[in-house]
Amino acid sequence: MSSTSEADAESILRTVTPSLDPKRHKGQAGKIAVIGGCREYTGAPYFAAISALKIGADLSHVFCTKDAAPVIKSYSPELIVHPVLEESYSISQLSEEDQRTVQDKVLGEVDKWMERFDCLVIGPGLGRDPFLLECVSKIMLLAKKSNVPFVVDGDGLFLVTNSIDLVNSYPLAVLTPNVNEYKRLVQKVLNCEVDEQNAEDQLRSLAKQIGGVTILRKGKSDLISNGETVKSVSIYGSPRRCGGQGDILSGSVAVFLSWAQQLRSGPESPSETPAILGCIAASGLLRKAASLAFTKHKRSTLTSDIIECLGKSLEDICPAS
Amino acid sequence: MSSTSEADAESILRTVTPSLDPKRHKGQAGKIAVIGGCREYTGAPYFAAISALKIGADLSHVFCTKDAAPVIKSYSPELIVHPVLEESYSISQLSEEDQRTVQDKVLGEVDKWMERFDCLVIGPGLGRDPFLLECVSKIMLLAKKSNVPFVVDGDGLFLVTNSIDLVNSYPLAVLTPNVNEYKRLVQKVLNCEVDEQNAEDQLRSLAKQIGGVTILRKGKSDLISNGETVKSVSIYGSPRRCGGQGDILSGSVAVFLSWAQQLRSGPESPSETPAILGCIAASGLLRKAASLAFTKHKRSTLTSDIIECLGKSLEDICPAS
Repeated sequence: MSSTSEADAESILRTVTPSLDPKRHKGQAGKIAVIGGCREYTGAPYFAAISALKIGADLSHVFCTKDAAPVIKSYSPELIVHPVLEESYSISQLSEEDQRTVQDKVLGEVDKWMERFDCLVIGPGLGRDPFLLECVSKIMLLAKKSNVPFVVDGDGLFLVTNSIDLVNSYPLAVLTPNVNEYKRLVQKVLNCEVDEQNAEDQLRSLAKQIGGVTILRKGKSDLISNGETVKSVSIYGSPRRCGGQGDILSGSVAVFLSWAQQLRSGPESPSETPAILGCIAASGLLRKAASLAFTKHKRSTLTSDIIECLGKSLEDICPAS
Repeated sequence: MSSTSEADAESILRTVTPSLDPKRHKGQAGKIAVIGGCREYTGAPYFAAISALKIGADLSHVFCTKDAAPVIKSYSPELIVHPVLEESYSISQLSEEDQRTVQDKVLGEVDKWMERFDCLVIGPGLGRDPFLLECVSKIMLLAKKSNVPFVVDGDGLFLVTNSIDLVNSYPLAVLTPNVNEYKRLVQKVLNCEVDEQNAEDQLRSLAKQIGGVTILRKGKSDLISNGETVKSVSIYGSPRRCGGQGDILSGSVAVFLSWAQQLRSGPESPSETPAILGCIAASGLLRKAASLAFTKHKRSTLTSDIIECLGKSLEDICPAS
């Protein structure tokens, strides 16, 4: 027996998206930071960060390695890209003490910005370098200390699956696993295989077991749970499965979660948590944008084409004025 | 009692913008240089420099650090980008004497171009590196020696707020502070807090106290003063507050100020100074362009979208033929 219900994603998009007010100043519509981007991967953090801006965030930062920075910067002058992360190959010659100094420097560079961010996205294009991942696990601790929400995707999920304590019982953590990432998470945390017959119950158990974090399980329908409620989003998207769509999603969750947190202080506080609302809104918008991009570009649809449709899709659902 | 009056920005745009004459040659419609761009920031100097070209300047240079140059060059082949500035990390191993040699070299590289420029924009994406800022303060002295006007924004304002003598009594200096930058300037120079009830009088006092520099205080309405007159520009712009719009403004002020200086030698010399006219024209045009971009892109509007609308907006107000 399942208690899943299809979320009214469009209505939630309208509730969560703030009205545009000329009296507001830069930063008030959201400041997002993506932690990711290494020598090997540069597209993923760009997709996450630019999606946040295209939805309506005011500022979007990327914290990546020195090698990745010039490339990510060159994709768009709109992003603020900090070349601060380090991979093992650049520090392997150093003594243990000097390596610790490097790590402290990395953490200092991120922490001095931390309180200004409304939400982090941790993982797009992060790679799996051990030194880098150790730094990122400490960045998660810093975020928790400052009560900054974070969305974990991609290699961030690899890190978290192996060290579940990093997110355990942090109510402002959102995990956005795809099929394979979800499988590993279920195996590791619930010690069993994915049960498609009882997908909703299993997702609820998983989220509860990790202390009430919010999980968005990507699939034909997206399923979302925080260990209490389970919601699904099944709006038709696109049959194209080009890489990078998960990065749009993680960047979008970050923006909508930030906006939903601002609602909390308002008079019409919704019953669902900001994390749940953020996931529903992001899933709904991505599906609408993917569908619109597919009608234009068919088999040729790329992630950048979907990003170009985010604005129009949001405008169709929730006009700016 | 306030004597502020709303400026007729459109009429001033028409007065200031030179007619296009096939007999003129390259450079006569303006040569602008942006001093800014470091390892961390590359978008801001690009926005300022490309805006100058899009409005109608003939040549737009950027003087930035070695790390920033390839990235800024990659944004556009239209800019001339000089990788000449140095940050502490690249010279910290050097003796004091060698550091001085490096500084002299930086200043030489900038100074040999100085007399060709009609206006500088100092600050977009400059960062706050102490060695770099020391060089930039000396670049300001060189500009003053050559009577080259300059617009100070971003981290340039951080520098100037801490060393007000750099601009004091230089009538060709324009400061373009946002809410926070203005607050620090008022605290430092007037030793008090921002007084919204007497915003115009306070701005006039501030500009007078700094020896008659021109200040464009950005806000819902932009307020402009040189210690004598106070003008406002309130044309409706856009409710989007994406980062980078201040860079468009600083680049635009530089072009319009240059053009207004050419008027001085003409027969119909306007009563306001070139700096005041430049600020009014730039503020008015940015607001028109932001409004146009917003009608097209709504919440999704980014700074690049506004830059794309500069040409059309200027053409609407002041047709090229």
